[in-house]
Amino acid sequence: MIVKQGIILEELEEKLKVCFKDKELLKVALTHSSYANGKKNIKFNERLEFLGDSVLQLSISEYLFSKYTNKSEGELTKRRALIVCENSLHEIAKRWGIGRYIKMSKGEELTGGRERVSILADCVEAIIAAVYIDSGFQVAKEFVIDNFKDTIEKAIKNKIILDYKTKLQEVMQKNGDISIEYVLTKHEGPPHRRKFYTQVSVDDKVLGKGIGYSKKESEQNAAQEALKKMEEENE
Amino acid sequence: MIVKQGIILEELEEKLKVCFKDKELLKVALTHSSYANGKKNIKFNERLEFLGDSVLQLSISEYLFSKYTNKSEGELTKRRALIVCENSLHEIAKRWGIGRYIKMSKGEELTGGRERVSILADCVEAIIAAVYIDSGFQVAKEFVIDNFKDTIEKAIKNKIILDYKTKLQEVMQKNGDISIEYVLTKHEGPPHRRKFYTQVSVDDKVLGKGIGYSKKESEQNAAQEALKKMEEENE
Repeated sequence: MIVKQGIILEELEEKLKVCFKDKELLKVALTHSSYANGKKNIKFNERLEFLGDSVLQLSISEYLFSKYTNKSEGELTKRRALIVCENSLHEIAKRWGIGRYIKMSKGEELTGGRERVSILADCVEAIIAAVYIDSGFQVAKEFVIDNFKDTIEKAIKNKIILDYKTKLQEVMQKNGDISIEYVLTKHEGPPHRRKFYTQVSVDDKVLGKGIGYSKKESEQNAAQEALKKMEEENE
Repeated sequence: MIVKQGIILEELEEKLKVCFKDKELLKVALTHSSYANGKKNIKFNERLEFLGDSVLQLSISEYLFSKYTNKSEGELTKRRALIVCENSLHEIAKRWGIGRYIKMSKGEELTGGRERVSILADCVEAIIAAVYIDSGFQVAKEFVIDNFKDTIEKAIKNKIILDYKTKLQEVMQKNGDISIEYVLTKHEGPPHRRKFYTQVSVDDKVLGKGIGYSKKESEQNAAQEALKKMEEENE
């Protein structure tokens, strides 16, 4: 069992491109509070998340401050808010495929915990703190910038979209008034973990499909896919 | 003039217990945006303030994280919010006597800029950023902790009071129902820079006096003085 866990941690370290001197730190960063419930002496990642949030903030602040010397404080603050948010932490968590490495209670797992945005985002912050404690601020900062570089670039170019449905509406209406339709095509799974499937179309032409754990999420994902396809067609 | 400014900067550096390698950084940290208005190529402290806020956050977060290993994430967040706020930055600015070192427009100065809480607090954050850029995170962290240690101690002991009037009410009512009276005794100065003088009393006994740039501020200061006197009497 110990050997197996060792191998799993190594696998994740490769994805993170980080080798921890103190593996215990990574283990704690990967432990959700639900796993510690009712058990004694199990450390979980909430305190690390508290610290990681500040490490992330300073890393991004300094990067923006040094790189964009002509941008005002207001501009910098706006960009930082686009970069340091649950959404982008979630993106990074998905890229690392971190869900499968998190220790959580059976109950949490059964209700979709491995895909829950907040759990994944918090875990990324905890890992940032683990890198900071293990190797200091310089290394942590490089780790953050390396992982956030796509997000930073998008934020600078104003390409981060927070509401895909609104964005799709804006893009489509450039060609005159149109009516965009979102249709829930199916749902599956038990009530506490139901998956929703939505497709978005204009004039009966399907533009995109999306899946999510709420109708709203599936619609946003459908709109996002539609925008992505349109962008690819324009390239 | 250059010599004079050099001497003034040296004086402040002594108070801060910091010697800047790059004096220009300290100068920018001490320049309010109003001073740069309508002038070309004058750097002011808003961008530094953006960076300093994050340096401060991480310094305090790490200190709390390392020192209070038994406190939960929620507890740590609460304490940090008490420590990292305009109020405590203002306290530090007053301790340094920083108001007189700030470059600002005549207009700002005439309307009480040198005592304005937001200007003073922002300036402290800008100085923290200047230390960070000049000497790195380790030095900046030590600088922060050294200057915030009283505030941290109070926050940990739950001794930070945000509303002195309410606190005074609570303390006084331990001895049964009483009526606390705030009386505006005088005001002076032009309308845009009026100073208010208030005294607080119970049964015609004056407990404390306070001055402020609004009635509210003078009442809070009167209540604060009353609480301080009572504490000293109990010691």
